[in-house]
Amino acid sequence: MIKLHHIIESQQFNRHFLEKELFPLAKEMEKIAKQGGSDILSGKKMFTLFYEPSTRTRASFEIAMSLLGGKVVFSTENARQFSSAAKGETIEDTIKILNDYLPDVIVLRYDEQGGAKRAAEISRAPIINAGDGAGQHPTQALLDLYTIQKEINKIAGTSIAMVGDLANGRTVRSLSYLYVKFPEVKIYFISSESAKMKDDIKDYLKKHNVWFEERNDLREIASKVDIIYQTRTQKERGALLEEHEKTESFCIVNQEVLDLMKKDAIIMHPLPRVDEISPEVDFDPRAAYFRQAENGLYVRMALLKMILL
Amino acid sequence: MIKLHHIIESQQFNRHFLEKELFPLAKEMEKIAKQGGSDILSGKKMFTLFYEPSTRTRASFEIAMSLLGGKVVFSTENARQFSSAAKGETIEDTIKILNDYLPDVIVLRYDEQGGAKRAAEISRAPIINAGDGAGQHPTQALLDLYTIQKEINKIAGTSIAMVGDLANGRTVRSLSYLYVKFPEVKIYFISSESAKMKDDIKDYLKKHNVWFEERNDLREIASKVDIIYQTRTQKERGALLEEHEKTESFCIVNQEVLDLMKKDAIIMHPLPRVDEISPEVDFDPRAAYFRQAENGLYVRMALLKMILL
Amino acid sequence: MIKLHHIIESQQFNRHFLEKELFPLAKEMEKIAKQGGSDILSGKKMFTLFYEPSTRTRASFEIAMSLLGGKVVFSTENARQFSSAAKGETIEDTIKILNDYLPDVIVLRYDEQGGAKRAAEISRAPIINAGDGAGQHPTQALLDLYTIQKEINKIAGTSIAMVGDLANGRTVRSLSYLYVKFPEVKIYFISSESAKMKDDIKDYLKKHNVWFEERNDLREIASKVDIIYQTRTQKERGALLEEHEKTESFCIVNQEVLDLMKKDAIIMHPLPRVDEISPEVDFDPRAAYFRQAENGLYVRMALLKMILL
Repeated sequence: MIKLHHIIESQQFNRHFLEKELFPLAKEMEKIAKQGGSDILSGKKMFTLFYEPSTRTRASFEIAMSLLGGKVVFSTENARQFSSAAKGETIEDTIKILNDYLPDVIVLRYDEQGGAKRAAEISRAPIINAGDGAGQHPTQALLDLYTIQKEINKIAGTSIAMVGDLANGRTVRSLSYLYVKFPEVKIYFISSESAKMKDDIKDYLKKHNVWFEERNDLREIASKVDIIYQTRTQKERGALLEEHEKTESFCIVNQEVLDLMKKDAIIMHPLPRVDEISPEVDFDPRAAYFRQAENGLYVRMALLKMILL
Repeated sequence: MIKLHHIIESQQFNRHFLEKELFPLAKEMEKIAKQGGSDILSGKKMFTLFYEPSTRTRASFEIAMSLLGGKVVFSTENARQFSSAAKGETIEDTIKILNDYLPDVIVLRYDEQGGAKRAAEISRAPIINAGDGAGQHPTQALLDLYTIQKEINKIAGTSIAMVGDLANGRTVRSLSYLYVKFPEVKIYFISSESAKMKDDIKDYLKKHNVWFEERNDLREIASKVDIIYQTRTQKERGALLEEHEKTESFCIVNQEVLDLMKKDAIIMHPLPRVDEISPEVDFDPRAAYFRQAENGLYVRMALLKMILL
Repeated sequence: MIKLHHIIESQQFNRHFLEKELFPLAKEMEKIAKQGGSDILSGKKMFTLFYEPSTRTRASFEIAMSLLGGKVVFSTENARQFSSAAKGETIEDTIKILNDYLPDVIVLRYDEQGGAKRAAEISRAPIINAGDGAGQHPTQALLDLYTIQKEINKIAGTSIAMVGDLANGRTVRSLSYLYVKFPEVKIYFISSESAKMKDDIKDYLKKHNVWFEERNDLREIASKVDIIYQTRTQKERGALLEEHEKTESFCIVNQEVLDLMKKDAIIMHPLPRVDEISPEVDFDPRAAYFRQAENGLYVRMALLKMILL
């Protein structure tokens, strides 16, 4: 088993790690979870430090730790408002002091891009980036790829439509970096004009000769892709999305899109969702987003094991 | 021992359950708690999901779980503000995903009537309604009845005065449904004109031939009842209570009321209280509200055992 | 080993307790912590009840408890906003009810001076004052003195400069009471005119014949002291500090001050810090503030052991 330390950005992982290390271990973790857990991380101590709202991510990390017998010895759900940060403390000082309290791992959600990296630079304990503002959310990308592998049985050679607020969503950013480590993939970025994928990602794809195309109507390509990766408008990032809202109806996953999709394609979503997926879609077996959320637990268990053992 | 699943509303319980199952088990739990706890729920996992302020309720559930050897593996104290709900996620989606994280029981306080029922409809894990807006608070009603039984040695044949903001208090609603499962009880609803008990409860009582009367001055009936159940103005439910505030002095429990009360009557209150009980009342042995709060721990331990074993 | 009950204010401790009981035990605790903990407090239950922002203090108490094998069975990080306090409940009622839930110790941060004392008056379980508004923060004073002893190898005969917002900082208040239990100490209070140390402390010092002086420029005395105890402007206490802000540049610890300081002097700070310590100071070995924060863990472990065993 590979030994991990910090998890900061999805680029740090490669195809070999995913296919040979992470995926098999996540599968094993699913069995362990369903049998009620194990105690391999007994005595290990996790701190969770969240500067932004979250249910799913904090829950899945804390529960993953607990299922492996480790302990969440300190947890704060809104560090921005209720901690020393409110008094003006830097993330570096906070992390430095928390290190003195002897954590084995720190799960950090920060509200500014680059926060996880700044934390990792001064932390003795491994930092897991659980989202840093508009930056990245690498464990989400790992569970996304695990879901694709599990649902479609391969990643190489697939095509994906990333849909919605691509300018502000960190999950599509993290996923893009990781997805293109697999050969012969195709990406469609589908959004309104104002919510287009940022240039840094597009430049990265060009540099690595990855095929991609930008569109603004999901219905035009719904029949062509193996994966529709829908996302939510990131209102909390202050997105100026007036035009986006006008045209976002072209981006909704609804019955019309279901009818166009391949029989064995899947619909993913990092959740929470609001109204970008119509209710009827839930009943279609191709709706993979709740299975995807479940996979998050197993992938995070696997990562904790690789970091802590 | 009866096996419980969801706890949604107090109507779901009957007299037999209370007297033959819950009360004896709660008594046993008191002993266990005072001896430092047990480990009968070892390996069981609780999630607590609170969308509204609470100290007592969340504390008593989490401590009850802990005293029986179970684990609170995920806890959030203001889900409304700090979770995916803030991003527009429905309670159904939140509960669906939390189920994938393998809870054995979910304790839910929601901020809208009907929330617990909606959650239960899609949850594999048992849901305990720890209050749903102006709806119900069934475990409070159970501990209230346990307190009456313990303090007065019977429920059948007693008379109760429910006092205060009856229009907005969910505890008096839940208690009403359950109290009238006992024969020959009498209820006085005592409130200002604007805070009267709602029609749905009064219709329910009429349908079941339960004697009740509405009054606006506690002093007129203080000498007639076995239980004064005082409540607090639910300012957080946006009650328009101007008139209520003018006349609420008729509803305060004070020395004058103590002097009128029977020697073996009791005063209850779901707490927290503000100024609807005068400070001198605390020193009277008939003040049962702190003993009532204590009983909450034992009743919740009993419920958890019935759900999880 | 001495048995402790409530910890309310630093005056309750004497020199003998510090030197013969607390310091040796804290040293032992450091070893235990670095070896991964012990289980001497197994079965003991802590409640943490915080009415004000904190990371460090709550973290260090909860982690201390966990390292000794005890359990944090209930924790709330903003009791002011998210609990019954928001509905108008008094601290006395809250503490009375929490006692019924069988804690072995309650760690309380309250937002008004005197809160811990009020709580202790009605609590069966030991109360640890983790800060009460502008009142005291006695465990901070204990760890401050432990740090001085550890860094300078003595307390008696040393001189200290307390710097910054002395009018509103509770740490300098608690430290003053305790520091002067040691013979031949000298205190310089260094602040702007509007942030001067309050009279109650100065009267206490006069009464006990302790040498002190008030100044407004740190540079004038930086060469004379063994300890510079820097503090932060307590903006959250509503300090009217306009003039203070004009002159606070005289109170910053920077390279100029480092150059003036004795070779074996130290710089302390209760943290969090904002800009009252310049970044370059972190690299000087005399900067003791992160070591001081670390000591907080060991001192709190020692206190918990003395309270709970």
